[in-house]
Amino acid sequence: MNNISYEIEKLQRKNIVEGQVVEKSDYPSFHKCFGPVMAVVQFFALLPINGVLSDSEDFLEFRWKSIRVIYAMLFLFCGTVESCLGTRRLLRLGFNIHFAEGLLFFITAMVKSFLMFRLGKNWKKIIRFWRKCEDVFLRAPYRSHSNLKLKIQLTFGILFVFAIVEHIFFLATSIQDNHLQLTECTPKSPIFWENFLARYRPHLLHHFPYTPFELPLYEWINVLQAFSWNFSDTFIILLAIGISERFNQLNNRFQNALKHHDLMTASLFRDLRMHYVQLVNLVQFIDSKISILVLLSMAHNFLIIILKIFNAFKPNRINALGDVYFWSYIIFLIGRTLGVLFSVSMINESARQTLNFIRCVPSKFWTLDLKRLQDTIEVESDTLTFSGKKFFFITKRLILAMASTIVTFELVLLDEVNATEEHLCSLIDY
Amino acid sequence: MNNISYEIEKLQRKNIVEGQVVEKSDYPSFHKCFGPVMAVVQFFALLPINGVLSDSEDFLEFRWKSIRVIYAMLFLFCGTVESCLGTRRLLRLGFNIHFAEGLLFFITAMVKSFLMFRLGKNWKKIIRFWRKCEDVFLRAPYRSHSNLKLKIQLTFGILFVFAIVEHIFFLATSIQDNHLQLTECTPKSPIFWENFLARYRPHLLHHFPYTPFELPLYEWINVLQAFSWNFSDTFIILLAIGISERFNQLNNRFQNALKHHDLMTASLFRDLRMHYVQLVNLVQFIDSKISILVLLSMAHNFLIIILKIFNAFKPNRINALGDVYFWSYIIFLIGRTLGVLFSVSMINESARQTLNFIRCVPSKFWTLDLKRLQDTIEVESDTLTFSGKKFFFITKRLILAMASTIVTFELVLLDEVNATEEHLCSLIDY
Amino acid sequence: MNNISYEIEKLQRKNIVEGQVVEKSDYPSFHKCFGPVMAVVQFFALLPINGVLSDSEDFLEFRWKSIRVIYAMLFLFCGTVESCLGTRRLLRLGFNIHFAEGLLFFITAMVKSFLMFRLGKNWKKIIRFWRKCEDVFLRAPYRSHSNLKLKIQLTFGILFVFAIVEHIFFLATSIQDNHLQLTECTPKSPIFWENFLARYRPHLLHHFPYTPFELPLYEWINVLQAFSWNFSDTFIILLAIGISERFNQLNNRFQNALKHHDLMTASLFRDLRMHYVQLVNLVQFIDSKISILVLLSMAHNFLIIILKIFNAFKPNRINALGDVYFWSYIIFLIGRTLGVLFSVSMINESARQTLNFIRCVPSKFWTLDLKRLQDTIEVESDTLTFSGKKFFFITKRLILAMASTIVTFELVLLDEVNATEEHLCSLIDY
Amino acid sequence: MNNISYEIEKLQRKNIVEGQVVEKSDYPSFHKCFGPVMAVVQFFALLPINGVLSDSEDFLEFRWKSIRVIYAMLFLFCGTVESCLGTRRLLRLGFNIHFAEGLLFFITAMVKSFLMFRLGKNWKKIIRFWRKCEDVFLRAPYRSHSNLKLKIQLTFGILFVFAIVEHIFFLATSIQDNHLQLTECTPKSPIFWENFLARYRPHLLHHFPYTPFELPLYEWINVLQAFSWNFSDTFIILLAIGISERFNQLNNRFQNALKHHDLMTASLFRDLRMHYVQLVNLVQFIDSKISILVLLSMAHNFLIIILKIFNAFKPNRINALGDVYFWSYIIFLIGRTLGVLFSVSMINESARQTLNFIRCVPSKFWTLDLKRLQDTIEVESDTLTFSGKKFFFITKRLILAMASTIVTFELVLLDEVNATEEHLCSLIDY
Repeated sequence: MNNISYEIEKLQRKNIVEGQVVEKSDYPSFHKCFGPVMAVVQFFALLPINGVLSDSEDFLEFRWKSIRVIYAMLFLFCGTVESCLGTRRLLRLGFNIHFAEGLLFFITAMVKSFLMFRLGKNWKKIIRFWRKCEDVFLRAPYRSHSNLKLKIQLTFGILFVFAIVEHIFFLATSIQDNHLQLTECTPKSPIFWENFLARYRPHLLHHFPYTPFELPLYEWINVLQAFSWNFSDTFIILLAIGISERFNQLNNRFQNALKHHDLMTASLFRDLRMHYVQLVNLVQFIDSKISILVLLSMAHNFLIIILKIFNAFKPNRINALGDVYFWSYIIFLIGRTLGVLFSVSMINESARQTLNFIRCVPSKFWTLDLKRLQDTIEVESDTLTFSGKKFFFITKRLILAMASTIVTFELVLLDEVNATEEHLCSLIDY
Repeated sequence: MNNISYEIEKLQRKNIVEGQVVEKSDYPSFHKCFGPVMAVVQFFALLPINGVLSDSEDFLEFRWKSIRVIYAMLFLFCGTVESCLGTRRLLRLGFNIHFAEGLLFFITAMVKSFLMFRLGKNWKKIIRFWRKCEDVFLRAPYRSHSNLKLKIQLTFGILFVFAIVEHIFFLATSIQDNHLQLTECTPKSPIFWENFLARYRPHLLHHFPYTPFELPLYEWINVLQAFSWNFSDTFIILLAIGISERFNQLNNRFQNALKHHDLMTASLFRDLRMHYVQLVNLVQFIDSKISILVLLSMAHNFLIIILKIFNAFKPNRINALGDVYFWSYIIFLIGRTLGVLFSVSMINESARQTLNFIRCVPSKFWTLDLKRLQDTIEVESDTLTFSGKKFFFITKRLILAMASTIVTFELVLLDEVNATEEHLCSLIDY
Repeated sequence: MNNISYEIEKLQRKNIVEGQVVEKSDYPSFHKCFGPVMAVVQFFALLPINGVLSDSEDFLEFRWKSIRVIYAMLFLFCGTVESCLGTRRLLRLGFNIHFAEGLLFFITAMVKSFLMFRLGKNWKKIIRFWRKCEDVFLRAPYRSHSNLKLKIQLTFGILFVFAIVEHIFFLATSIQDNHLQLTECTPKSPIFWENFLARYRPHLLHHFPYTPFELPLYEWINVLQAFSWNFSDTFIILLAIGISERFNQLNNRFQNALKHHDLMTASLFRDLRMHYVQLVNLVQFIDSKISILVLLSMAHNFLIIILKIFNAFKPNRINALGDVYFWSYIIFLIGRTLGVLFSVSMINESARQTLNFIRCVPSKFWTLDLKRLQDTIEVESDTLTFSGKKFFFITKRLILAMASTIVTFELVLLDEVNATEEHLCSLIDY
Repeated sequence: MNNISYEIEKLQRKNIVEGQVVEKSDYPSFHKCFGPVMAVVQFFALLPINGVLSDSEDFLEFRWKSIRVIYAMLFLFCGTVESCLGTRRLLRLGFNIHFAEGLLFFITAMVKSFLMFRLGKNWKKIIRFWRKCEDVFLRAPYRSHSNLKLKIQLTFGILFVFAIVEHIFFLATSIQDNHLQLTECTPKSPIFWENFLARYRPHLLHHFPYTPFELPLYEWINVLQAFSWNFSDTFIILLAIGISERFNQLNNRFQNALKHHDLMTASLFRDLRMHYVQLVNLVQFIDSKISILVLLSMAHNFLIIILKIFNAFKPNRINALGDVYFWSYIIFLIGRTLGVLFSVSMINESARQTLNFIRCVPSKFWTLDLKRLQDTIEVESDTLTFSGKKFFFITKRLILAMASTIVTFELVLLDEVNATEEHLCSLIDY
């Protein structure tokens, strides 16, 4: 299978290159829009590749010895070591729901980082394929009504700010819980930060005795993990926005042609079909590259949403700050998950919209290309979107299915809720 | 997306206008049938627009300074204030299932009123698009076998009467409960109507001390809220009836042609396809305008049905009148919800029926238009209906899916039923 | 809608009649095969129409004054009176699960009898339409490899015997329970048969004081109700067998043609398509006549299966005979339900099989009719079967869906099982 | 139905034979790849047929009097006798969950062995049909990029080793449990192996008094049962690999043609369509032969997975070895089930991939064959795979559906988990 799909890619790239001379573009390519985002996330050790701010994707270059790659690999090494120590502790001391949830977060974050590293390594190939497919959309006769660059960078900016706020909230509640334990319960160590580490990084403290110098290192790893965990959703959203935009441009051109009978020529419809097929190939190519990330991301979000809502039925939060953090965390998590679902299903919605225009073409202008275009859309109507390794395809209908599954699971779990109010320290001392 | 769909509308309107001279119509347009209904609902502050009883939709006019708009805005203002005060009380005093259910009703009713107001504002645009699409169906060669005007107004009338009866029942049980509390339990105030307000409008009594003159104002708001909540379902039903009728007319003409071989010409099939496509455009256009209302309405009905059936398992109703009200409320609610589901899915059924006629056309009369018409129906066969923001499409299969979800939820919740008989006053004193 | 579908029928009948001279048939028509079955069931007051054993469906005649109709109406009258008295008792004395289950059985049986009576009234119309659609299949070039007459009558015979055995079992356990109560618990009357009636027909005993002469009348009503309840499933199975047979014949002819290139002419494919469309029309026509019966029958079976399996978890059967009756009842019920599901889904399987032959036609013989036939099958592939009022379509996939729903419901209900062993008399004294 | 499908097979075979002269093949046929596997499994009394290692499938021969058949029938006889004695014991002594689970395993294994025996009997017919369908793929212009022989034999080898390890684990834990009971609880017999038999084969010990010579016989039966139970999954996986390979070859050739415009001729597309249809026929033919095995295998795996995960929630394993066995058993079982699901759904994935190439064919090369090929794939897109008697079709989406059903069932069953720690002997003494 793998070498087949690789061959398809090669073939598709070949087909597209032939007979096209690259001209000056009127609108920024996806590479130009997404480059600045990459420049930022490289500070968080993701997508390490040189030349992200260059004008052309030809200047992208992955070098093992570049500072970005070394920085990313350092993080991967430290994070992996930490996850392994954590797993070892879990196996040694037995299952503990609180520690297990944290460990799952570490491991998911590290796997996502590895996937992002691999994407960085292949990014040049990916973005060149993208450029070939989108090239025709960057100049007349296609037009762009929305500012793709602004849309991508604004979306990134907003989600970035939310992620930072969420992390600060997390730190604040952690410090407050630690303070509470020191003053009112039985701390593991009288030193504030040592106790802090004993609570959140017992597996590290077990091997590396406490020194104050470790703290920044641990916080650095933690920030990068949190960012990696957050950014994979944002990344999927941004790619989806980039692809929907092209389908919208194609729809715009089609719709424009419908107003002027002299524009409806066989060659127009041949072009539209060819460009549509290119976009379909683009969606399938990108899906083949990121669907494992989509699967992991959706599965983890799904699991955490169920766990958190289940916890929400329990009356055991420690204080107001913890409560606010808890609810804002749930809302942000659900919001981000919905963001992924909506933006990706928008690819599908945009792609299917073309059917409406085909329907409106008078029969006297009908051509084989229109028929084939219609068949293509019809055949792919449920699958023209990102998928979780083809186990599920993200469309609008999936959102309802997921919501109803979550409600069912919560109702079934309702029986297990133990409503007894627990003592403060039993909540803090772990 | 939004400006694309706006462009489609413009385009579709344009296409339809060209090459059609408006002639005298043999059957009433939807505007003519629906106008009297609008005249009635404007007394309830919905769909405020002038000229609803005029002969032509060209006389419709939305004026900010008209009495209807001012009346509607006054209601929106009062209702919103009340909902905000209620929300404030809920947040201040903590969650209370009884008060929360009432508040959810207020808020849903107000959101529906806002949506209806917006629909009123856009009504001229909507109804003109409708007229363009349905214009060909108002005269020969199309015929109408059913009296659309009667059907719409009768449906409205019946549901209107039910809604009034339901509200009177509600008032009667409220007054009786209030009376019971005054005589047998601990009332909040010895004055009958002050206690009444303390029970049903505590959030208002908190800010505006009791005077008898407030009662009519509160009742006015309440009646309008109840009507708004009811009418949104009726509204969807009436629109669905109006559209199904046109598909039925098209089917009638097709079927009639099948009986006479000399009628089966290429031009007939071209017309049928064009008119069918117009109806598809109409369904999609109306859906884009009302699907948020459909989503809200179905979600709220779904939730209330589950809650009420869950309550039905509990043995705690206060007296016979309360029991009768409770059951008639459930039956009316389920009936209305089924009414929406059936009438909307009838659009889909009627639209798919055309396939049966296409199948019966002998191959010697086969044309490209028939092929394209068949493809259109096939592609849209699941989606040619109103939708809840495209999360779900209302077809007959959805009804079974909803019913089975409700049964599953109830069975799962069965464990939570607490069958202990509670004391009368614990049921009344809230 | 209704008059449209009536018009379709008329139209379809018309189309078929034209250009066909009725010739001698080589194989028995469905009327000939099914007639003897009808002759038997008329003893049970179902499908009352004269001439069921005649050679041609033209001799069928529904006369209000015929002995069969009067007999059937007498039963309908008696049964309805009994059901009304039972309902009255239930409303008067309050809900009782045991009595309610029995009453539901009475009511379902009576509704089924009414539906069967109406089918009897329309039977001539139905069977004539059937004959028109199947006429071409009764002679060369179509061949029949299976003996339809034998298949239908054997199926009926086997299910008939099972139903009788089941009823005898029911009587035996009833008598034994009655005997047990008389000897070991507190009977309602010392007279054996009066106590019997007090147990099983309390609503009748309340109005008509006990005389031994009532017993045969009550037993007659009960036997007819039980038969009506059983036969509706058998009826659906037999109709489904009759239709599948025709699709199989069409498939046989198609397959035969594929072996001889000189048989593959445009006219053959035109004929095959026309005959296929006739069968599609037949399925839709029959479905429109019986789908309410299908819906009622499947819903009742589904409910009873869930209830009975739920009861099976309880350890409370009275004795070995009761145990054997209980299990044989469940097995027979599930078997009959599966019988309906399998035989009806066989229509769908047979109809879709034609696609395999179309695929094998070499492209040089390809014609418009083959293309249209393929489109027809594809479009109808999920719906070419009997339906429950179009809420669900009976295909093989539905069987799995139903099974999984039953398992889910049972697992959810498992919590409610009360495993305490109850005293014998608490099980008998009702 | 049956003789129709038989006729199809005959017809399809005929079509394929005509016009093809068998030439020398460049790649091994499926028979050549699968033969050595058969040679091994015949030691375990499965698929008994002579000539499995021969070069051509023409040398295959099923002889009732051959040693393999007699060996297999001997096993079938012994295994069936044992299952019958076990069933008799269950009915006599009443239901016992532990014994029932074991008995279900015996019965499933024996039914699978019977199905395998029947497959062996028909193997020549099956493998000849396979050869006819795959013949064109064994030489140019088709090429093979993967080593089918290695893939099949390696897959078999790995699963074979796992099965042996699993059985050794099973024996080790059985012996240890037996030892524990002898030393710490109340054994049924002081003799080690007699007690062993009393624990695991009480139904045999009841009829055949203990002698040490029985042990090898019982172990022989048990090994063969375990192997039969395991191998049915492996068998499905290997067949699926064999078919996917052919679709991949076809895709390779198509893709290769897309690179060279002069290769895209009408005759190429006619060939591709014909070969594709042959593969579709192959999938349907093999499915008709093994779908009962698929249904049985998936149903049993599904049931056991649910039971085992349910047991995993209970804290009652006896010792570390039991724990390791328990978890490795679950993991191996889930792994094997996923192996079946993935390899079979790969058929579907490969078959649908062809659509991507069709889409890329420029319109000027478009032919009727391409259109028909596209229609074929579209129509069969959900069903072109192995099925469980058409109740379900194994595609990637099914995997998610199964997983979500398992999770739902486990969550519902969570209530039933009885977490009390039981005494050691209450776990061992059965």
